[in-house]
Order: sequence, then C-alpha cells, then structure tokens
Amino acid sequence: MTPTNPRTPASALHRSSGHAPVHLDLRQDVALLTAALIDINSVSGNEKVLADAVEHALGLLPQLELVRDGDSIIARTNLGRAERVILAGHLDTVPLPITEGSLGTVPAYWPSGAPGEGILYGRGATDMKGGVAVQLALAATMFDAGAEPDKDVTFVFYDHEEVEAVKSGLGRLVRNHGSLLGGDFAILLEPTDGTVEGGCNGTMRFEATTLGEAAHSARAWMGSNAIHAAAPILARLAAYEPQTVTVDGLDYRESLNAVKIHGGTAGNVIPDKCVVEINYRFAPDKTPDGAEAVVRELLDGFDVVRTDSAAGARPGLNHPAAASFVAAVGAEPKPKYGWTDVARFSELGIPAVNFGPGDALLAHKDNEHVEADAIRECLRALRTWLSA
Amino acid sequence: MTPTNPRTPASALHRSSGHAPVHLDLRQDVALLTAALIDINSVSGNEKVLADAVEHALGLLPQLELVRDGDSIIARTNLGRAERVILAGHLDTVPLPITEGSLGTVPAYWPSGAPGEGILYGRGATDMKGGVAVQLALAATMFDAGAEPDKDVTFVFYDHEEVEAVKSGLGRLVRNHGSLLGGDFAILLEPTDGTVEGGCNGTMRFEATTLGEAAHSARAWMGSNAIHAAAPILARLAAYEPQTVTVDGLDYRESLNAVKIHGGTAGNVIPDKCVVEINYRFAPDKTPDGAEAVVRELLDGFDVVRTDSAAGARPGLNHPAAASFVAAVGAEPKPKYGWTDVARFSELGIPAVNFGPGDALLAHKDNEHVEADAIRECLRALRTWLSA
Repeated sequence: MTPTNPRTPASALHRSSGHAPVHLDLRQDVALLTAALIDINSVSGNEKVLADAVEHALGLLPQLELVRDGDSIIARTNLGRAERVILAGHLDTVPLPITEGSLGTVPAYWPSGAPGEGILYGRGATDMKGGVAVQLALAATMFDAGAEPDKDVTFVFYDHEEVEAVKSGLGRLVRNHGSLLGGDFAILLEPTDGTVEGGCNGTMRFEATTLGEAAHSARAWMGSNAIHAAAPILARLAAYEPQTVTVDGLDYRESLNAVKIHGGTAGNVIPDKCVVEINYRFAPDKTPDGAEAVVRELLDGFDVVRTDSAAGARPGLNHPAAASFVAAVGAEPKPKYGWTDVARFSELGIPAVNFGPGDALLAHKDNEHVEADAIRECLRALRTWLSA
Repeated sequence: MTPTNPRTPASALHRSSGHAPVHLDLRQDVALLTAALIDINSVSGNEKVLADAVEHALGLLPQLELVRDGDSIIARTNLGRAERVILAGHLDTVPLPITEGSLGTVPAYWPSGAPGEGILYGRGATDMKGGVAVQLALAATMFDAGAEPDKDVTFVFYDHEEVEAVKSGLGRLVRNHGSLLGGDFAILLEPTDGTVEGGCNGTMRFEATTLGEAAHSARAWMGSNAIHAAAPILARLAAYEPQTVTVDGLDYRESLNAVKIHGGTAGNVIPDKCVVEINYRFAPDKTPDGAEAVVRELLDGFDVVRTDSAAGARPGLNHPAAASFVAAVGAEPKPKYGWTDVARFSELGIPAVNFGPGDALLAHKDNEHVEADAIRECLRALRTWLSA
C-alpha cells in the first residue's frame, strides 16, 4: 500500500518475511528468464514469492519508481515525455495440472534438452510468464547504452487475474492507485501469438430458470416437468445465429451459449426446477444493457436473471500511440474475442490492445507451452517501438 | 438364515445382542400399535430393533412357524388349508424429515391429544407402519375364540424396501427361502387408501447423452455445444403423449419423463457432454424389452442407454382368491401406477394386489400421516376375508 523509495533495496522491504527474495537475472536471455519465472509457482493466491522476486529485481533499477500493493507492483519511468504507455501483465497462473506426468507443471521443461532452444513447457508458459518476462527484460534494458525511450512507461504486474473478477489485483490497483495508472495507450501482454488483438468482447452470464411441480414419477400427471419446460430455451439457443460486428475496423464475432444445465432431484420425482446457465460474449459496440436486451428478446417469456457482466472494450486503434505501435509490430490487428483486462483500461478511458507471445488456445491447458523465439520476437518488437 | 423353532422364545435368539427386544403388545388397538411401531426408528439399514421386536412378539404365538433372515421375518401358519395367502409389508422407512419441527418424525404424534383418536403423524405413518400393524394384529388374533382361518397365511416382514432394489429384503427372501414364499395370492399392505390396487406399472431408467466438443465460450465456434444438442431430446419428451393401457380390466396410465439433466463444466467452457436421465413407467402388458423399444423409437438417433429396469405386474384379479378378496373388501379395484413389490410376487407366479391404510400421495412426505380409523377398517376387512 505504501509507495516505496525506488532506491531502497528491495531486500530491505522484506525483513519481516524471514526469507530473502528469489534472485531474478533480468538481463539473461528473455526465454531463459521466462523459464525462471515458471520455476516459481504462482498459482492465484500464491503470488507472493514471485511478486517479491519481481519487486526485488525492479528495485535494483534506479530509473523506476516502484509501488507495491499486495502482490501487485507498479513501476514507472518519470522522464517527462509527452506520451505515457502502459505495459501490463498478471503474475498468477491457473492451478497446476492434476494429470500426472503433464508437461505444464513446475519446473519449466525444455524438450530440446538445451535450455533456451525450441519450445518451453510449464504452467504459465503461455499465460503469461512469457509476457511478464518481456516486461521485465524491457524494464532492465531500456536505458542500456545511454538509450532513453521516447515515451514514459508504466509497468504493471498484478495478482489474481485467473480467478473471480472481484479479487483482481488490477482492479485493486485501479481503486487504490488510479492516478499512477494514467496513460495514453496500454498493452496487455496476454498471449496473442505475436499479433495485435484490439479491444475485447464483453461477457455476460444469465440463469434461465423453469419451474414445475414435483410429483412421483409414477404419477407424472400430478405434477409438471420443469426439464421438459426448458426445451424451448435450448432450442432457441441452438437456433440462434451469433452476430459478427465490425467495431473500429475489427470484426468481433459473438457467442451465445448454454454453458451449464441442471435440473431434477431424484430418479423417481418429476423435476420442479431446471436452471440453464448462459454465457453471452458480445461485441464492444454493445453496452451491457444492450447485450442483455438481445438475450431477453431471444428468451422472451422465460424467467431470465443476469448474474454477471463485464463490458467489452473498443480497440481504439485510431489513437496515435496505438497506430504507431501497430505500425512497429507490422502485423494486421485482429479482434480479441475473450474478455481480458484491456476492458479495465478501457473503463479508465485508455485504449488498450493485447500483444504477447504464445497461442491463447493453449492457455490453461496441461500442455501449455511457448516458442522461445516468440518471446524474443515480442521483446524485439516492443523495444523497437519504445525507442522509435 | 436358520429356521427357528416357533416355540423358542425370541429373547433366547438375541442373547448375543445384549439388549432385550422392545416389547410390542399386538393385541392393543391397531392404531395404537401403529404408533408404537412409529416410535421405533427403522430407517432403511436401521431395521434391527424393530425386526427384533416383531420377531419377539410373533415368537410368542404358538400357531406360527418363524424364519428370520437378516432383518426380515417370515411367519407361517401350517393348517393344511387348500389355499395359502401371503400378507407382506416392509419394516423400513425413508429417512426422518430434515426440516425442524416437522410432524413426520419419531415419536408418533396425535394432534387430537387423545392417542388412538383422529389422525396419527410420524415417519412411516403412511408408508407403511399402519399396514405392518394390521399384519401383526391379524397374526395375534386370527385364532382368537377358537376361530381358525379358512386359508393358510404367510406373513412377511422385510427390510430395505426404500432403497436400491439390490438391497431389498424381499428379494433376499425370494433367493434364500423361495419355497416358504409359495402361495395362491399375495396382498402387499402398501398404502392404497383402503382400495384394492392391482398389479403395477413397470419402471425403467435411461440415460440419453449428447456429446460436443469443449472450447472457450469466447470462441464457441471452435467447439460444439452438447447442451444445445440435447434440445430435441427434451422437445420430444415434452411432446410425447403417454399411453393408457387396459390390462385385466384395469386402466394403467403410463408416464415418460426426464427426471434429471446435467451438462457443462464451467461458466466459460462450451459444454462437451449433457446427460438426460429418463424414467419410463410402463403398463404391465409390456415386457421390459417392449418398453425399451418405445423409448428408443421416440429418441431415435440419440445415444440412449438403459440403466435400470423392473417389470410390471398384471393385476391377476381373475384368480379366485383375488376375486374373493375384492368381493370382501367391496371396493372397485384400481390400477397401481407406482412400482411396488407386487412385481416380485408376480415374478414368482403369484398374483398380487396392494391394499393398505393411508394415502400413497403422502408417502415420504414430511407430514406423512394416517387416519386411525383407516387402519382399523383395513384390519376389519382382512379379518372378515380370512375367516369367510
């Protein structure tokens, strides 16, 4: 919670913990740095050791102002540049694989047998220790050989991304240190396979409930079957053709799905309740209220309750900082379908894109992995842009 | 397992248990006897105390040959009569109500404040300690005042009726003591509100499963939704019109229902599996295979697995013993919709009916109850028939 002096050795901050922070060499090859990050288990709720190591390493860099809040860290240059950009990533991962012998576990694993060459396996390899390693490597080297970036940079490392939104470390930073998060453009280093993915779809959850009347299943006519009553809900969802909406030049493909269903209490009882859980991923041209109206119209006549909602984010690629970034990366921007924390920057009025190493489709998989060269290429692209 | 000498005092059988059996006065008013039975908790698996008490009380009656098997008891007269009838009932109940302050609990409760008058509440009041009390009262008094019944009688008291069929005490008796269960006609004293309910519908369970392909719900087009795929299953079940089939003069109304549904694993994953559990209650003119064919035709094209099956029982009211019983009771016989153990007698080639005090619709309810006079009327009807 307390801003710390950037010159204070990080080790001094942790005398009370009784453990010296793990040392991270931020100047080593960025793929090897990724492996070092994977070696530190940081499943959501267990980010402290990694956050300590990151804080300690960044504390050795005199150009950065550091703020620690829980297991989140903000590190800012104060060069007085006209533009400030934000590079953000989360420190936590989903839980380790349960399957014995899975590759996506701790410590990191190089099938090539040669650390730094080829593919790197391990929890967080894709989502998103490669991106965090790129942030750290940039922070450590951006002033090398007398170079000075032409933009001010705010690095954000945060906890609790992979769990309920209410626990989000980034959400907490926005509340506690919103002024330190200001900027003109934000890049979230979530895996995008090296392309630029702009904005994100919103996401909303609903419960559609049918009620019936319980009765013994041998005398079904004494009751009313709530599961049978849910047939039209499923039929309408199955028949619905999701829209594709163009926003700021990117095509956002929507999804509307039943994700869970449960009904019935016993094998000999006519079910008196059935609940269909629905997830709507909607394009960022829609407000949450507008998205809700789509679902309510489709399921007109049914008891539908909205249970969760997160607005999408427009890609904002028309902003100058975004345009120069896209030009530096040199790849055609794509829309982001999954909801990501770009939406939190969008709420602060900061256009944001996703750009990071690794294939998002591998995220959370037991065989999560990333190409060493993809991490290096991401670092190269960002370094080029920052010093342009 | 071992047949015991009917003259052996029951107390001698239980020296090892260290507890004397509860004393039951079989000659008291049959409604008060019902209350005494309710006072002994006999939730399925916990029938021993009640079975000990019943065995002890019957062991004092010299006209009866006793066999105990687990917590089931067979008690037979051996009068050399041309006809033998079976009076059967289960000793166990469903679990006690969870709801605090419910009436259907132990001990028995008389809202009138006058034991024996009006309505009797308590677990088993309906299902089926009233019927068991009638059995016990008949056994104790059928030889009173020099009377001798004109039929041999086999009383059967058994455990584990309210749980999985594989645990059924009656099923075990059929396997271990089938020859002692022979007879011309059986009456199961399950609650029928004093009418005669003949035979029973069969029951069969199925699982209809749809499979899809998991994907992140933000990229639904990468997967395939198993819950959406279940829509036609529910629609066909909802649209199906169950048959009513006349068998031996009674109209058996069928039921075909989804009783449970579950699908989906997480709020952000396209579900790859959905399972609909289906219960078909079919008229006793159908074999299980014939019943299965009905469901398979309705759900043609879907993966349907039969998981459980119990044949129905024809009412057999054309049998002389059944006809004389119906005449003695004097009420129009009705079909039984729920599956009951009459089907086990039917499998042994013994026509069987349900006839007992209490409303079957109250069975298993927290406010289970029975009219004292209904129990007395059931006893009167059976006593009249046996001594006719």
